[in-house]
Amino acid sequence: MTQVGNEPIPKTQRAAVSDDPSGFKIKEIPVVQPDQLEPGRALVKVLYSGVCHTDLHVIKNEWPVHPERPCIAGHEGSGIIVAINDATSQFKVGDRVGIKWIATSCNECDFCLAGNEPLCLQAKCSGINAQGSFMQYCPAYTSQLTRIPDGLDMAEAAPILCAGVTVWKALKNSKARAGQYVCIPGAGGGLGSLALQYARYMGISTIAIDSGAEKKALCEKYGASAFIDFKEVTDIVSAVKAATPDGLGPQAAIITSPKPEAYLIAMEYIRPGGTVVAVGLPPAGAYVKADVFFTVLHNKNLVSSYVGNRLDANEALDIVAKGHVTCPIVVEPFDSLDSFYTRMAQGTLAGRGVIDLWNKRLGFRKKRNGKIRSEGGP
Amino acid sequence: MTQVGNEPIPKTQRAAVSDDPSGFKIKEIPVVQPDQLEPGRALVKVLYSGVCHTDLHVIKNEWPVHPERPCIAGHEGSGIIVAINDATSQFKVGDRVGIKWIATSCNECDFCLAGNEPLCLQAKCSGINAQGSFMQYCPAYTSQLTRIPDGLDMAEAAPILCAGVTVWKALKNSKARAGQYVCIPGAGGGLGSLALQYARYMGISTIAIDSGAEKKALCEKYGASAFIDFKEVTDIVSAVKAATPDGLGPQAAIITSPKPEAYLIAMEYIRPGGTVVAVGLPPAGAYVKADVFFTVLHNKNLVSSYVGNRLDANEALDIVAKGHVTCPIVVEPFDSLDSFYTRMAQGTLAGRGVIDLWNKRLGFRKKRNGKIRSEGGP
Amino acid sequence: MTQVGNEPIPKTQRAAVSDDPSGFKIKEIPVVQPDQLEPGRALVKVLYSGVCHTDLHVIKNEWPVHPERPCIAGHEGSGIIVAINDATSQFKVGDRVGIKWIATSCNECDFCLAGNEPLCLQAKCSGINAQGSFMQYCPAYTSQLTRIPDGLDMAEAAPILCAGVTVWKALKNSKARAGQYVCIPGAGGGLGSLALQYARYMGISTIAIDSGAEKKALCEKYGASAFIDFKEVTDIVSAVKAATPDGLGPQAAIITSPKPEAYLIAMEYIRPGGTVVAVGLPPAGAYVKADVFFTVLHNKNLVSSYVGNRLDANEALDIVAKGHVTCPIVVEPFDSLDSFYTRMAQGTLAGRGVIDLWNKRLGFRKKRNGKIRSEGGP
Amino acid sequence: MTQVGNEPIPKTQRAAVSDDPSGFKIKEIPVVQPDQLEPGRALVKVLYSGVCHTDLHVIKNEWPVHPERPCIAGHEGSGIIVAINDATSQFKVGDRVGIKWIATSCNECDFCLAGNEPLCLQAKCSGINAQGSFMQYCPAYTSQLTRIPDGLDMAEAAPILCAGVTVWKALKNSKARAGQYVCIPGAGGGLGSLALQYARYMGISTIAIDSGAEKKALCEKYGASAFIDFKEVTDIVSAVKAATPDGLGPQAAIITSPKPEAYLIAMEYIRPGGTVVAVGLPPAGAYVKADVFFTVLHNKNLVSSYVGNRLDANEALDIVAKGHVTCPIVVEPFDSLDSFYTRMAQGTLAGRGVIDLWNKRLGFRKKRNGKIRSEGGP
Repeated sequence: MTQVGNEPIPKTQRAAVSDDPSGFKIKEIPVVQPDQLEPGRALVKVLYSGVCHTDLHVIKNEWPVHPERPCIAGHEGSGIIVAINDATSQFKVGDRVGIKWIATSCNECDFCLAGNEPLCLQAKCSGINAQGSFMQYCPAYTSQLTRIPDGLDMAEAAPILCAGVTVWKALKNSKARAGQYVCIPGAGGGLGSLALQYARYMGISTIAIDSGAEKKALCEKYGASAFIDFKEVTDIVSAVKAATPDGLGPQAAIITSPKPEAYLIAMEYIRPGGTVVAVGLPPAGAYVKADVFFTVLHNKNLVSSYVGNRLDANEALDIVAKGHVTCPIVVEPFDSLDSFYTRMAQGTLAGRGVIDLWNKRLGFRKKRNGKIRSEGGP
Repeated sequence: MTQVGNEPIPKTQRAAVSDDPSGFKIKEIPVVQPDQLEPGRALVKVLYSGVCHTDLHVIKNEWPVHPERPCIAGHEGSGIIVAINDATSQFKVGDRVGIKWIATSCNECDFCLAGNEPLCLQAKCSGINAQGSFMQYCPAYTSQLTRIPDGLDMAEAAPILCAGVTVWKALKNSKARAGQYVCIPGAGGGLGSLALQYARYMGISTIAIDSGAEKKALCEKYGASAFIDFKEVTDIVSAVKAATPDGLGPQAAIITSPKPEAYLIAMEYIRPGGTVVAVGLPPAGAYVKADVFFTVLHNKNLVSSYVGNRLDANEALDIVAKGHVTCPIVVEPFDSLDSFYTRMAQGTLAGRGVIDLWNKRLGFRKKRNGKIRSEGGP
Repeated sequence: MTQVGNEPIPKTQRAAVSDDPSGFKIKEIPVVQPDQLEPGRALVKVLYSGVCHTDLHVIKNEWPVHPERPCIAGHEGSGIIVAINDATSQFKVGDRVGIKWIATSCNECDFCLAGNEPLCLQAKCSGINAQGSFMQYCPAYTSQLTRIPDGLDMAEAAPILCAGVTVWKALKNSKARAGQYVCIPGAGGGLGSLALQYARYMGISTIAIDSGAEKKALCEKYGASAFIDFKEVTDIVSAVKAATPDGLGPQAAIITSPKPEAYLIAMEYIRPGGTVVAVGLPPAGAYVKADVFFTVLHNKNLVSSYVGNRLDANEALDIVAKGHVTCPIVVEPFDSLDSFYTRMAQGTLAGRGVIDLWNKRLGFRKKRNGKIRSEGGP
Repeated sequence: MTQVGNEPIPKTQRAAVSDDPSGFKIKEIPVVQPDQLEPGRALVKVLYSGVCHTDLHVIKNEWPVHPERPCIAGHEGSGIIVAINDATSQFKVGDRVGIKWIATSCNECDFCLAGNEPLCLQAKCSGINAQGSFMQYCPAYTSQLTRIPDGLDMAEAAPILCAGVTVWKALKNSKARAGQYVCIPGAGGGLGSLALQYARYMGISTIAIDSGAEKKALCEKYGASAFIDFKEVTDIVSAVKAATPDGLGPQAAIITSPKPEAYLIAMEYIRPGGTVVAVGLPPAGAYVKADVFFTVLHNKNLVSSYVGNRLDANEALDIVAKGHVTCPIVVEPFDSLDSFYTRMAQGTLAGRGVIDLWNKRLGFRKKRNGKIRSEGGP
């Protein structure tokens, strides 16, 4: 299914379309044909797409920013360019590429020139005002396509394009260095389990906060130096501090948990001079509240990390391609999209959900290379 | 009064002593004699001491951290070493030195070794657990004494030791560069008027927030590119953004105002990717509250700056000594200390109050070198 | 001559064309017509072009990298877009833009993504493998055009596009901060006089090295704290060190002089821990030689700064537009190009030469706004 | 032999004393008694001392800076405080401490305040103008003592105090980040084999340059991604570049080899924008020569790293204590000192030589914990 060389481009495709905040439906819609592509666009045959909770927030209008409808979400797409209308781009038909949250930016404002293209005022986002990767043929902007390294499994690459790059950038923004400690609330989740591994790769020791034996085992597998079960430990602040050799707390915290309390206590348990990094986009209404007196007295900092730029994406993928970080994925057919969201809401999905855009029927699953994958049945 | 060569050291001295939270009294107390000095200490004949509101917060137990009593506050002291008990120090009798908020630190922990001595767990602070500069002969720790550059007026040097170094460090921590914009709420006050000048010296354009014609004139004199009167402007956020050429807001804000609202709106008006710097120590109970969604989406940061280290102090003084920053001081006799606090609370003190430890009676004032000074009467 | 609205685009134009290393000739050549423009290109009506010695080095094959012939040099061009073939660009007809040394880059490699587009392996340079600004209508790549701020004189903007941005970037790379010292050999020249002013704007004190009363006066006008005449001072290393308050030498040196000796002594006179910044591109064969023992013992660094990126260009222009830096320019007709090079070689050109592409005959000169300018005669 | 509690301090001790440049002799000399200790000093009972080639350069006057005689070298000493004369120090009798190259500094100049104490003009160095660790009881300055982490073997700690901290600091100075490449000429030597491990811990891939099967095996054990045998490969520059995935060369090189050629080719093989880090102190007369044209065109940088500060030392030791870096040591009695130098000169010493100051006679060696150690014979 991955050969795209001379295969014909169909007239219609399957896509998950949201017409209103109630949700989305998988429909048959037209494919933008190569001669219809706008300048600066490539037609990407999407093979896999990671399933991030953000997409559902957007579709359901749970965010302050509402999508243009009909909306096609999906921002962790991996696929292959089958047509391109861009005379100046380095990309060409056959290239393996990723579709990210930032779909395009102006490339000429000071934010873009400084490598802060996510802050570009003209940036478009997949699922908000650009079509995302929950479709078989996405007319993507070339300006923000990301090259997927040779040899990297396309299904595994998918979640790195958002979850991976976000935590990688957050770790860089934390200024934590090899030999120091970072606390990761939500360590057993999709973002957290990647954060643990990227941190380990950087020589940073991790303190994991999450709950349950399964997540504990996962965190320890990924090198956490301590695991704090927030359902069992009453004084988390003290427990986090005690998990550092001198008892002063970690140099940084990467808040991969969407819970507001996670922010509140992080400002307490980080070491004087330390940094709390807010990542991802929680539902509206989550606030960080910090006591100015102690914030200043202990010189604490709250910084944020909003996805990453194109270079961050290249780096995040490269580290996975080299084998230093693995993404525990659950690959299922396109039709499982709804079911993935349900399981994510129930907390019963162990790993990052990835849909196979080309597998119509729910087949059996089997482990391939240690990963749980769906394989198309007959 | 500044010759100290061979003058005898008296047995008693005048000092402002606080025995309880009701306030302080200027009393005659013993002078630590040279042969009584503990190791690592110098006896500093204090000539001038800046009057910072922090001292009063401490004395009145308005801070979460209470002072050891009897407490002698004052942390902007300039004076001369008249005795020393430290075989390894570079300082010697006759040296012009400053006494700062950080009175001593261990110089051996990782915070100290990284130049973050204000975060040292064993640090002592002037007025909290070390005697400060509201006394004529202070038994100061040599480890945190600051050399006052030749030629710099000792009265003018005093407020730089806290107010000056704090805003200088905050500007460095803001990461704002020459050609960028910084907003300074409280620009017309003691910290603010220094921040305006240090920023101008660094090539940073300033947007001043304060109120009244007098403060407007002061801010414009110190190079503010815009002045926003918070009593007249209803939508401060829009006004601050409009004061930057592209309307996106300043790269940073240095919060020299103790009002909590100042923090809240700063997170809104700074440019995406920008930084709010909390400085100084407000009364307990001031909170910064930040909406996580927009903080992350716009990649905003809240950092803090707690005084500065010894190098920051050297730099801040050096820039004043070179004439690039001037401190508008009002010098009055020691007995004016209480009156200074009253005027600060009333908002009627134009400039930074400095007490002359050796001028007992309130004489006439005259301008010397363009500064209002008290001169001792007969 | 600056209105470009609906004026017709001629079929031919005047351009300085080099067919071989002997030099160039001003010829009448075809204008690329709007319908012939390649994708990703804009036709820029060049109004002014700064004259940099680099162009002559290139034309004469004095560099290891030889130009593609016929070669049209010029990399400090200011002009107006009269046609554009780029559907995704933010630029449009009528925009005031600058043409720089870097003519285009791939915008997709890791160098480009990190804002290091001058290092892009596919970068093209004006005069080497792209047409430069010594022509009236340049078919420029949109990807590296620089917007010229409103209100900035187009003639004054021209030299900032290379000379200005180069020293601005070099000062940033030097890591020198407000309050520190930078030595500038060649301070009285085109790069040097800009470096003095950008440094002053950043709060950095400068030590100027050059020769003669006229250059001394210029350097002092631009705020140099010391002037060292290399023809009169025998021990330059000692003189530079003595020009810093503590005698240890400046924190950095920006080598705007092409003489190899300038590099050799700079490694000696900079302060321990200091940085020598190599800028511009000298003729081949200039070497820096550093004694490893003392380089390490005194922790000295040699870094380089090769032009700047698009953001550096925006910043450098913006600071000039705000009036903090002025470029002493000598504007003359296109036909003076050869004469400019002659005077530069003789060292008799006081200021940066700028050609007016549209003034055919050498008219009289008069000062306008304090600058020497040519005005077209009858 | 490591208990020091109440054991009496002898009147004499064994020390390696150099009276002239011909070498040194192990003699019996007086021990500075506790009541003779100068202020700011601790008497350290030295247990082990690493043997660094620098000591021999110093003794033989092969450096531009000559030692004060009689000179006692040694700057990788680990031991225990048995007496102290410093009322303000945090150290106390019984503490496990390290003696480094920097023996003391003023702690008050701007270099010291910025954590650059190796650049302090008043710094003293072990073996130059302070007594080093080639003696059983060293009257060390407390100001630069380094605490040795609990549980870290004292013999293994010794070489970290110079070799370890130097390469750790150099890697930090290189600005290379996790996921990037660093080339290490001399990778199989004492400094190099530590650099390989610290780099691996930081997530930095390494390209090793050295010669021979044994060193190849060592480098691969320590995670080198490529090994280039300089005796077999003729075009080292091309080989290093080819060892990076995109063929552009590593982001940095850490020059642990004392050979001048190592510097010359490193400026060639590093990637555009890359950094060559000079470490250690080669014999006088080694020069780095860099072509200015290509240095600037490719934006290459030469920085230096001179030992490290106290914080670097703490970090370097801590990483070893955690088990992420191991130092292959060969421990032998004090009397082997001369023999160590001979073997180092011959290139026949596999690992870092460490002398046991308390083992008089050369006993048998055996592996303990996988390390070759000497054990005192009868």
